[in-house]
Amino acid sequence: MNLIKTIQWKDDKVILLDQRKLPHEEVYVVCEDYESVAQAIEQMIVRGAPAIGVATAMGVALGTMGIGVSSKEIFFHKLNAICERLAKTRPTAVNLFWGIKRMRACALSLKDPSIDQLIMTLKNEALKIYHEDIESGQHIGKFGASLLNDGDTVLTHCNAGALATAGYGTALGVIYAAADAGKTIHVLADETRPRLQGASLTAWELQKHGIDVTVISDNMAASLMHAGKIDKVIVGADRIAVNGDTANKIGTYGVAVLAHHHKIPFYVAAPFSTIDLNIPDGSHIPIEERDHREVTHIGNTQITPTLVNVINPSFDVTPHALITAFITDRGILKPPYQENIRST
Amino acid sequence: MNLIKTIQWKDDKVILLDQRKLPHEEVYVVCEDYESVAQAIEQMIVRGAPAIGVATAMGVALGTMGIGVSSKEIFFHKLNAICERLAKTRPTAVNLFWGIKRMRACALSLKDPSIDQLIMTLKNEALKIYHEDIESGQHIGKFGASLLNDGDTVLTHCNAGALATAGYGTALGVIYAAADAGKTIHVLADETRPRLQGASLTAWELQKHGIDVTVISDNMAASLMHAGKIDKVIVGADRIAVNGDTANKIGTYGVAVLAHHHKIPFYVAAPFSTIDLNIPDGSHIPIEERDHREVTHIGNTQITPTLVNVINPSFDVTPHALITAFITDRGILKPPYQENIRST
Repeated sequence: MNLIKTIQWKDDKVILLDQRKLPHEEVYVVCEDYESVAQAIEQMIVRGAPAIGVATAMGVALGTMGIGVSSKEIFFHKLNAICERLAKTRPTAVNLFWGIKRMRACALSLKDPSIDQLIMTLKNEALKIYHEDIESGQHIGKFGASLLNDGDTVLTHCNAGALATAGYGTALGVIYAAADAGKTIHVLADETRPRLQGASLTAWELQKHGIDVTVISDNMAASLMHAGKIDKVIVGADRIAVNGDTANKIGTYGVAVLAHHHKIPFYVAAPFSTIDLNIPDGSHIPIEERDHREVTHIGNTQITPTLVNVINPSFDVTPHALITAFITDRGILKPPYQENIRST
Repeated sequence: MNLIKTIQWKDDKVILLDQRKLPHEEVYVVCEDYESVAQAIEQMIVRGAPAIGVATAMGVALGTMGIGVSSKEIFFHKLNAICERLAKTRPTAVNLFWGIKRMRACALSLKDPSIDQLIMTLKNEALKIYHEDIESGQHIGKFGASLLNDGDTVLTHCNAGALATAGYGTALGVIYAAADAGKTIHVLADETRPRLQGASLTAWELQKHGIDVTVISDNMAASLMHAGKIDKVIVGADRIAVNGDTANKIGTYGVAVLAHHHKIPFYVAAPFSTIDLNIPDGSHIPIEERDHREVTHIGNTQITPTLVNVINPSFDVTPHALITAFITDRGILKPPYQENIRST
């Protein structure tokens, strides 16, 4: 398949496909400095845990090019400030912190480098992370495709596709790989309120790749499961604890409970880097509360009375017991997760 | 509490609060003939099973006033055509058919009436149905309030309030009665995609009555249940089979499964007339498929790519095993439903 250009590094600039404009317009935003990258992450021009990881690494690389000092001490001081700015953009996706950590480690790995060497090495590291992400999606796809049968209908929630990564996808990577292997797969895309990434992004990229997709309101999934119309559920992940508890887009937990009730396999597709080896379980994952306007308005239409109370947690945590298996770039992980994650 | 004027009979016209304009504008539509009432039901100017029942009865009454013939044979022929037109407006809510059946039975109950007597009697019958509906809501409220504790947080789906009835409510009638009894009740309103009756109608009428209400996207309910933030679920019903299987707004079944998983009581509040004694179980309830634009657009904003596949079933069926109890105008009904419905 042709990759969607979610993120590109071009002429020492970061080019992002503006996901706020999809599915209606294919517009690209050019970031010339790390602050623009940080704002693009905050404003969800780029979103999806793996894509955020890649964009952050590129943001760090871009940032170091703009430092323009000759003292290495000041350079490292400023590199630190760049990392801290980017770390503040969004709290839940672990890939953001993982990307920053890898860039920091890369800078520190060089023995007495010149500033030019540092800048060049960090740029190469960011590009390496980009290419690894695409490869990672392809591996996830290959492993996951073996779980799907010809003719399966797969439910997915939010967007864990090419648009959530450097260009291949995790949950949708599995769909693409199955399609490439000659299987016909039907996808049901939860629209995924409040930001509707399923209706806009998942539908858009599946349509672009010629995959049969049907958009449903989130609350329609249950009766479709009851009617036997969903064979498997595959979702992405923003952060996975060592015991397998998984933070993903709000609504994922509900889908997992419904799948469990209807005895439908529930898979989480994510690169191994989404596992946060520092947290024992899901209670340690910070959940981002986003702008209430995402709930009260759709486009320019206000759907609630003025001044009504609203909450807007952007993610929820699915306990590991509801997850049939993880589809990672290192293979399929089955329970017991704690043991199997530690030994992978 | 002051009644909301969902439906009124005034100067031999039917006045409907236009629910498509809420929560932003309080506009009333005047129906001068039965065809306008039929269209108002189709267009969801008036919606909610009990309200549809009342509006239909008033539509029949209005229709007979416009017949204007002196032959009783032609009068009955035209009355029949009016009933058939109204019966075609929406398929799922049983109250619509119940309302028509009652008006037909009323017309046939008179011994050799004049046409004027027929018209007068049918008008009085429609007004009787209207008043009975308000009383029915008040009884449901009283019975249901006994199930709620001071400080409870109740999740509701769609709108089963004053706006879904002649002016008191079923699920929200329980909330109003509990509030009137001095209990503080917090309500979580599922926004209820695709038509967002929760975000617009439930939030509006609860706010108007000074009840604490928080609007959530449908997919947020699961994690709130997991966090112990929901004490009870109360929803309305569009049709109840003799075994207790219940058709209600799409998404209700999912909420019931989630409540079951989290061991939260799940109540259905509805007048006894919502029970369809002619059908043994939920598989016999026809489910309305509505315009796909309800899913693809919100206001003027198109949220999906053009030409994407969409489904839009307006209702789903919750199996009786997931329902803790029915709150009816004749009292609380507990399992076994088949037995207890037959003996009530």
